[in-house]
Amino acid sequence: MTVKLSDVKSPADLRRMSLAELKALAKEIREKIVETVAANGGHLASSLGVVELTLALHTVFDTPQDKIVWDVGHQSYAHKLVTGRYDRFSTLRKFGGLSGFPKRQESPYDVYDTGHASGSISFALGLAKARDLRGGDENIVVVIGDGALTSGVAFEGLNNAGEHRTRLIVILNDNSMSISENVGGISYYLTTLRMAPLYRSTKARFEKVLRTMPNLGTRAVNLLKRLKGGLKHFLFPEAWFESFGFRYYGPIDGHDIEALQKVLGEAKHLNEPVIVHVVTKKGKGYPPAENEPEKYHGPGPFDPATGTIRVSEGPPYWNKVFGEAVKHFASQDKRVVAITAAMSDGTGLDAFKKAFPDRFFDVGIAESHAVTYAAGLAQGGMIPVVAIYSTFLQRAYDQIIQDVALQKLKVVFAIDRAGIVGEDGETHHGEFDLSYLRPVPGMTVMAPKDERELVDMLYTALNLPGPSAIRYPRGRATGVPYKEALEAPSLLEVGKAEVLALGRDANLVAIGSMVVPALECRELLKQEGISCGVVNARFVSPLDTELMASLLRSAPLFVLEENVSTGGLGEAVEAVAASMPSASHGVFKMALPVAFLPHGSQEVLRQSVGLDAKSIAKRVMEAIGRKDDR
Amino acid sequence: MTVKLSDVKSPADLRRMSLAELKALAKEIREKIVETVAANGGHLASSLGVVELTLALHTVFDTPQDKIVWDVGHQSYAHKLVTGRYDRFSTLRKFGGLSGFPKRQESPYDVYDTGHASGSISFALGLAKARDLRGGDENIVVVIGDGALTSGVAFEGLNNAGEHRTRLIVILNDNSMSISENVGGISYYLTTLRMAPLYRSTKARFEKVLRTMPNLGTRAVNLLKRLKGGLKHFLFPEAWFESFGFRYYGPIDGHDIEALQKVLGEAKHLNEPVIVHVVTKKGKGYPPAENEPEKYHGPGPFDPATGTIRVSEGPPYWNKVFGEAVKHFASQDKRVVAITAAMSDGTGLDAFKKAFPDRFFDVGIAESHAVTYAAGLAQGGMIPVVAIYSTFLQRAYDQIIQDVALQKLKVVFAIDRAGIVGEDGETHHGEFDLSYLRPVPGMTVMAPKDERELVDMLYTALNLPGPSAIRYPRGRATGVPYKEALEAPSLLEVGKAEVLALGRDANLVAIGSMVVPALECRELLKQEGISCGVVNARFVSPLDTELMASLLRSAPLFVLEENVSTGGLGEAVEAVAASMPSASHGVFKMALPVAFLPHGSQEVLRQSVGLDAKSIAKRVMEAIGRKDDR
Repeated sequence: MTVKLSDVKSPADLRRMSLAELKALAKEIREKIVETVAANGGHLASSLGVVELTLALHTVFDTPQDKIVWDVGHQSYAHKLVTGRYDRFSTLRKFGGLSGFPKRQESPYDVYDTGHASGSISFALGLAKARDLRGGDENIVVVIGDGALTSGVAFEGLNNAGEHRTRLIVILNDNSMSISENVGGISYYLTTLRMAPLYRSTKARFEKVLRTMPNLGTRAVNLLKRLKGGLKHFLFPEAWFESFGFRYYGPIDGHDIEALQKVLGEAKHLNEPVIVHVVTKKGKGYPPAENEPEKYHGPGPFDPATGTIRVSEGPPYWNKVFGEAVKHFASQDKRVVAITAAMSDGTGLDAFKKAFPDRFFDVGIAESHAVTYAAGLAQGGMIPVVAIYSTFLQRAYDQIIQDVALQKLKVVFAIDRAGIVGEDGETHHGEFDLSYLRPVPGMTVMAPKDERELVDMLYTALNLPGPSAIRYPRGRATGVPYKEALEAPSLLEVGKAEVLALGRDANLVAIGSMVVPALECRELLKQEGISCGVVNARFVSPLDTELMASLLRSAPLFVLEENVSTGGLGEAVEAVAASMPSASHGVFKMALPVAFLPHGSQEVLRQSVGLDAKSIAKRVMEAIGRKDDR
Repeated sequence: MTVKLSDVKSPADLRRMSLAELKALAKEIREKIVETVAANGGHLASSLGVVELTLALHTVFDTPQDKIVWDVGHQSYAHKLVTGRYDRFSTLRKFGGLSGFPKRQESPYDVYDTGHASGSISFALGLAKARDLRGGDENIVVVIGDGALTSGVAFEGLNNAGEHRTRLIVILNDNSMSISENVGGISYYLTTLRMAPLYRSTKARFEKVLRTMPNLGTRAVNLLKRLKGGLKHFLFPEAWFESFGFRYYGPIDGHDIEALQKVLGEAKHLNEPVIVHVVTKKGKGYPPAENEPEKYHGPGPFDPATGTIRVSEGPPYWNKVFGEAVKHFASQDKRVVAITAAMSDGTGLDAFKKAFPDRFFDVGIAESHAVTYAAGLAQGGMIPVVAIYSTFLQRAYDQIIQDVALQKLKVVFAIDRAGIVGEDGETHHGEFDLSYLRPVPGMTVMAPKDERELVDMLYTALNLPGPSAIRYPRGRATGVPYKEALEAPSLLEVGKAEVLALGRDANLVAIGSMVVPALECRELLKQEGISCGVVNARFVSPLDTELMASLLRSAPLFVLEENVSTGGLGEAVEAVAASMPSASHGVFKMALPVAFLPHGSQEVLRQSVGLDAKSIAKRVMEAIGRKDDR
């Protein structure tokens, strides 16, 4: 028993270990994960849940020739630790360090950069079919959580995989909890199964009952009738997955390495799609996370000894302000309902949920459904507020266009995590929402500069005739008082920007999170003797074109947005400038590059793309200089 | 038996009819549908399939208080005929006439403008939940095709509806064929069911067998083992839908009005979600459509007596040129594979399918899966070409960003039906693809001016290192020879536009379908003594900024695109202009308005938005005049 995690250079080292050694290693892996996440923050509970599964996978399969697809990718910490990344593990989620998700550029053991849930079966089916066409024989293994299985694309993948009938192993990691409470029929059946006496023993018992009954005759029919419900349940998981063309194994105890090795060893010899249903416990081995898996799903830094999450002082979080505001307005108007896609806590809707359980809907990881469901609610006379992270709302783009905008329905999109999100990195930044929403006919698109304006914007949105979107960042807001805004909210004039200060030498037009840095920049420039104005754009669509034109006539205009530079506020202002070429002082766009940004703290990332006050000031000075040179 | 369809002013009239009268009416409805579609083109086979179902629905339910949600909406012709739109039915799909899909603005009997498949359950659940919150008691009824059921959002809707457990009736219109051949496990089970002796008689027989067996004892176990496969099938549809929390009725003969009335009458008294599984025949009552339902899915005008579809002479269709090209290149490179989402014929991939069945994948109505599956194939070493209509590709926006672009995978998107599509109208126009693809990092976005360039662009895309998209319109191409381009294709320089002619007074920059009208416009302007150049942009991303800057220095620049004016080529050029204000002659955007365009012929619609040669010429002259006035 002298195994040391630090000695594991690759999965080949695992394959030489005894079962006892693997068990000891599992313990060490858990300690390392807890220690690292305690320091860096990260996805704790789900990573702790798959330690044994990870070891079983890498000992049964010949990785990296065999491929493991992790869905969602934040379960991959143990996988990272045993695939040559132990030494760098302390850099997890830090700028320049290891990603918190699988990354193909990081390791040949990573095959799919999974940040968004539920695509794994589709992706793996592509890998499997490519293998068949190439004449290869590697195994393709998916690990998908039960939460991820509720998303439509997982269903599409299952359905199509069943048709292909090619070799593919899908491990359903059933940890009885997606990020929020799991929902829907599938969840219900998995729960039934878990709560029932173990499936296999049920089956055995049922057969025994039949065998020992002296004469079934007509009684058999009655029995069957009585058992019908039970029979269906009894056959359910097997029949359900077999209906898609999968062979079903399970459920297996996901913390029993030996049992896992046995069933995976069988599964890999089958020449057809296989589901291996594995039951794991989130947070396994770390009592605080076992007891409160949702709290430890993605905690910030905490004390590893006690589990106490470190709380810092500061202004309220954007999502909590939103949650409070929507709850407040819902208390005044019974038509207001709220929808989340498995993020009731993350979106700040937990308060709404408690206050108005009947008007709160967590639809699971199903963003497309969330939006069309909202459209139906709106058509039925409700006023739905749909809170989804910017990056995940991409999953409902067609529904936004077809089911909401085309039908001119009043749905309010609360777009959380817009802009740079920080440590979750490139799959999670909200870089595109302004660009993909601006072309949507009739959609009002806005972003608040502070929490007070968020309240006003939500109030305004609730009073608009058609669809609207409000985007705001992850993290803490600005700290302005906003409670009185709840009591006496302002109806903002749609399409009107707010002039905070006019400048002689330059003006900044900023949207949302960029207004505060713009004001800071103004102060920095003042110290340099430069008079720089600041305008809070408020609305990206419709744009305050009149004001933009007037600003363009007076001084160079700098447009600031935490969105890619293509298709967002900057281009909207450039379009104004292009229509008045002889009168324009020029537009200078400052936005996110059209690229996937890496992970790191929000502060470091904003600096890295030049969207902090100092960088903006520097850019303004350079540009004004350049202009003088002309 | 004196019923006359022309006398039916509303469903109230149906409710007074006898069964015999309804049957006679069904015949008249079919005649009217055939006559109208023969003249106007339209969705024939599926509309003929639901005539009895439509009559049963409107007699059992109290429409328009009760709501019927049609999915996909092109089944709604009979519904339109009995809800006060008989008199206008000859205007079907014509500019200013009735839409081929439900339209809320057209009638209070229409509740959901369904052009894209599969959202009905989600939308109806919203209606049902809103009803509950309002304390209403109307019935909400969905009619969803078996093809539409394969899409992920339908699954998400089912799953969530089961959780709500509210009153909702979902009619599965099982016509054993989605637009292409239906695929996947669900389809397999529905097929099994249809082919088996009728479900109910099977059930009865099975119970009888058990009842008459003298002694089951241990034999029962063997029997059960033998029957296990059969048992699961026997229980399947019921168990499958019940797994989602739905009560199941069926299958019912969808052409038996009385049977339908009976089961729907039962269903409406249940206080829970219900599935009514109805089997219909596409094209029912019109032999040509019954025999070849796919051919008559959405035919152009035809001879109603014989079914002969009118064939006009003209250049080849864009989709067929694409199909021929991808087949040709696939014959030279085994890695090339093709994917469609239930549109093998519509995308022109039928030829590829015949030539390379192993490398052709129809994944059903599952665009999200199609794209992630393609990403997996690319990661596995294949070169996938994904052919999806512009408007439907919106369903895979997140997958394009996360699974293809973020992972820098080489997937070629062949975007058919880009721009104005014509008679299918607002849900089907491809108005947004340039806008939503331009912000995607690393995505090359292009559009060919003619079929020769389509071949070259496909060749270029197949030789790029990363993802790319080629968009082209519905309908006929330009008629230039392109066969030799197949044998000797040109590798286009990425990001370089093609100068067709330079102008002294103005220049037009056109992309894709707008190049030919631009050239026509040049000729018109020549007659007016105006020298107008034409540049074929070829690439929207990356844009030929150098050429655009040079054009801007020389003369006013008119940018033409069949895409909304926000976020597309026009704004890209305006961004160039804004960066060089003092040197610019001004940019004039000519694009689709940021609005949902109605239905009508492509020609009429292009004129209506000013994108025909004459309108462009007029605009140029006005603008040049305006410029002189300054």
